[in-house]
Amino acid sequence: MTDVEKAVPVAAPAEGAGGGRAGVVGAVLRQWRTQDLLDRSGSALRAGAWALSLLAFLVMACNEHGDWKQFDRYEEYRYIVAIGLLAFVYTTLQLLRQGVRLSGGQDLQPKTGLLVDFAGDQVTAYLMMSALSAAIPITNRMREGTDNVFTDSSAASISMAFLAFVCLAFSALISGFKLAKQTYI
Amino acid sequence: MTDVEKAVPVAAPAEGAGGGRAGVVGAVLRQWRTQDLLDRSGSALRAGAWALSLLAFLVMACNEHGDWKQFDRYEEYRYIVAIGLLAFVYTTLQLLRQGVRLSGGQDLQPKTGLLVDFAGDQVTAYLMMSALSAAIPITNRMREGTDNVFTDSSAASISMAFLAFVCLAFSALISGFKLAKQTYI
Repeated sequence: MTDVEKAVPVAAPAEGAGGGRAGVVGAVLRQWRTQDLLDRSGSALRAGAWALSLLAFLVMACNEHGDWKQFDRYEEYRYIVAIGLLAFVYTTLQLLRQGVRLSGGQDLQPKTGLLVDFAGDQVTAYLMMSALSAAIPITNRMREGTDNVFTDSSAASISMAFLAFVCLAFSALISGFKLAKQTYI
Repeated sequence: MTDVEKAVPVAAPAEGAGGGRAGVVGAVLRQWRTQDLLDRSGSALRAGAWALSLLAFLVMACNEHGDWKQFDRYEEYRYIVAIGLLAFVYTTLQLLRQGVRLSGGQDLQPKTGLLVDFAGDQVTAYLMMSALSAAIPITNRMREGTDNVFTDSSAASISMAFLAFVCLAFSALISGFKLAKQTYI
């Protein structure tokens, strides 16, 4: 009886400590998994923004059908080409940077890197929103009069720009979250 | 002598503990001050956005000078009135909520409150950017032809909308930071 009574208090703390260790490991694993999920969604969103801004830019830049149906006669359409190109260059550089990081190359300081990520994503998202909003009213007005390949291509380019904006906005959300976490912990 | 020797070891740990306590108190005070600064800048930015969106909305809504110089004949200008009003209502509700909170009334759950703050600020900032970008090209085109009180009022309203956007964007930055901090700590 005394042996059992002696063993119980020893066993109980040991089990407690084991449970605690499993809890800590579980918490760390969960945090890693969250981190991994954030990283993966961030990359996926940037790749999406890359493809969509390339499409928005190309569709509009090829939108030349002579006479008044030339994209470069309208400042709104020139703006969407410029911002589409900018977003494409930005996301390309980000994807290249990520490739360098994954292959073990040198990257920016972690804090600077996160700040660049967040500021870049957020500013590009605002610019994209601005460009697509500027191009909508003139396209609407043209389509009231006539519907042809020029107005349809403009509408397609605007839709691609909107989808690229959505990707960039979510990417800014994720990188802002990572930045705030890094700053405080 | 023994009285003094007795007194010293008692005094020393007390002083050490006092220093430790002062360090902790200092850290807590510093955190409070940061928190306070964030809260205060958040409130100031919301108050700024309130005033500027009210101005943007009023200046455009009073922009009626007969014939083609009526804001409600152009969808871009109707859009800026609608979004200006929405931003005004949103910031008014936020300021009222803050008043209730300061006077000790009931508020949302902390997490829900921060989420509402961030989502509201960010969405309003995107909408504001969209509305002012849509209104710029048509104003530009009108001013190429003629410069009168109608086009000047439109330009003034767009500028106010831009300043309101800047306030909302920074406010979104601050509330996003608070939300991320709250979620992780």
